[in-house]
Amino acid sequence: MSEKQQLTLLKIGGRTIDDQVSQAKILHAFASLPEAKILVHGGGHQTGEWCRRLGIPVKMHNGRRITDEDTLQVVTMLYAGWINKSIVAKLQALDCNAIGLSGADGNIIQAHKRPRGLIDFGFAGDIDTINHQVLEKIIYAGLTPVCCAITHDKNGQLLNTNADTIAATLAANLTQQFEVRLWLCMDLPGVMLDPKDQDSLIPILDPIRYKNLIERGIIAGGMIPKVDNAFYAMQNGVHQAFIGNIDSLLDGTATQINPDVR
Amino acid sequence: MSEKQQLTLLKIGGRTIDDQVSQAKILHAFASLPEAKILVHGGGHQTGEWCRRLGIPVKMHNGRRITDEDTLQVVTMLYAGWINKSIVAKLQALDCNAIGLSGADGNIIQAHKRPRGLIDFGFAGDIDTINHQVLEKIIYAGLTPVCCAITHDKNGQLLNTNADTIAATLAANLTQQFEVRLWLCMDLPGVMLDPKDQDSLIPILDPIRYKNLIERGIIAGGMIPKVDNAFYAMQNGVHQAFIGNIDSLLDGTATQINPDVR
Repeated sequence: MSEKQQLTLLKIGGRTIDDQVSQAKILHAFASLPEAKILVHGGGHQTGEWCRRLGIPVKMHNGRRITDEDTLQVVTMLYAGWINKSIVAKLQALDCNAIGLSGADGNIIQAHKRPRGLIDFGFAGDIDTINHQVLEKIIYAGLTPVCCAITHDKNGQLLNTNADTIAATLAANLTQQFEVRLWLCMDLPGVMLDPKDQDSLIPILDPIRYKNLIERGIIAGGMIPKVDNAFYAMQNGVHQAFIGNIDSLLDGTATQINPDVR
Repeated sequence: MSEKQQLTLLKIGGRTIDDQVSQAKILHAFASLPEAKILVHGGGHQTGEWCRRLGIPVKMHNGRRITDEDTLQVVTMLYAGWINKSIVAKLQALDCNAIGLSGADGNIIQAHKRPRGLIDFGFAGDIDTINHQVLEKIIYAGLTPVCCAITHDKNGQLLNTNADTIAATLAANLTQQFEVRLWLCMDLPGVMLDPKDQDSLIPILDPIRYKNLIERGIIAGGMIPKVDNAFYAMQNGVHQAFIGNIDSLLDGTATQINPDVR
């Protein structure tokens, strides 16, 4: 039996941010959680839209964004500015005392610019350290962190970091003080054999089944890093990790990640 | 003799934000202050630039911005996003544990949309309450707040508020716990009889002289609300208020605001 305080870390992104009805539903559910909590958000699909509007070429490689200087400014404006503060203001209206944070704030997420390999991802940041003490002080002060996917290198450089990775790494680094539950929220109710068939939802995903589903091409693309992040969290002290949409996460039918082979 | 802890609140804006050399000098001086401290920043002249780039008409009335919905998004992206996080990352590089905040974060600055009068200023926010307890907790946690000029109405609406007013109101609301010194930093070394003549700097400005200088047209335009804010702070418990540039503020030759008639 753990005596640690419970904490839920909810990560939202993609359409769950862009669609205002879906976002309102999620924020309402999040604000209602009685335990300590953290919200981590990505940028939805607004980045591409703003880059196009500003005449900045959108560059991707295998689904990952190449963040040049202009794009870094746009993602910082969007993620840390408009999206983060809009979410914080909406949570405040729901009497959730939210505080918006980038990784630079309180030095909570220190990262380094990804080294140039065959592909130069530009100002993409890979996480080095989480300053969990500052996050704990903020939570114990009665505040609810709302973290965007911007980090920094402690030398003055802002960096763009994957929001699922931030969520999993934050979750893993808060396990000393909290019993952490990780919720990765997306459009689908969970990891599915056939996204069109609700009955094909996988209730529990263990490493053997995961490997098998990747080999069969059933789990592919952006779902792979998402599931990898959930396994990483479970292998690093997180109590429970689920992947689903807000309904399945709330009613417990989302896919649970089980790092132990059954 | 006061036993309160000292706190310096430095407000920067205009060219002091836009010019990277001047900004670096100010951030270095700010990071070096040994006492508790808060930085408040405006948006410089980048708002107009970005509005033009995005094809959003810039609307002003008597030097005050009219904030329509599109402009609110731009100022939130710029102030709370790019400018705030760039400053926070630079302060982190100077080993100042900065945390960027809008008025929505921790509900620190609650405002209401300015009522439509002869002029509709749009999403302009007039301050109602400062949640100084949250700011105090953040400062006591060893963090340095960096506040941008975005507030909220606690009903989910973000608002655009004058940065000098935010600085003076924050300063006045922190006087219960701190002996507060307010520094309003601009391009000029202080309030001057002739901006081109360094020797015409007014060392101390009291209400009678202020009234006289307004009547003579020597203090005019944007300088009036700035000086008014400094007087407001002094009339509300702030220990010292100065208006100048970073050099004159540091060496004590900036204009000191004295609410008592000599």
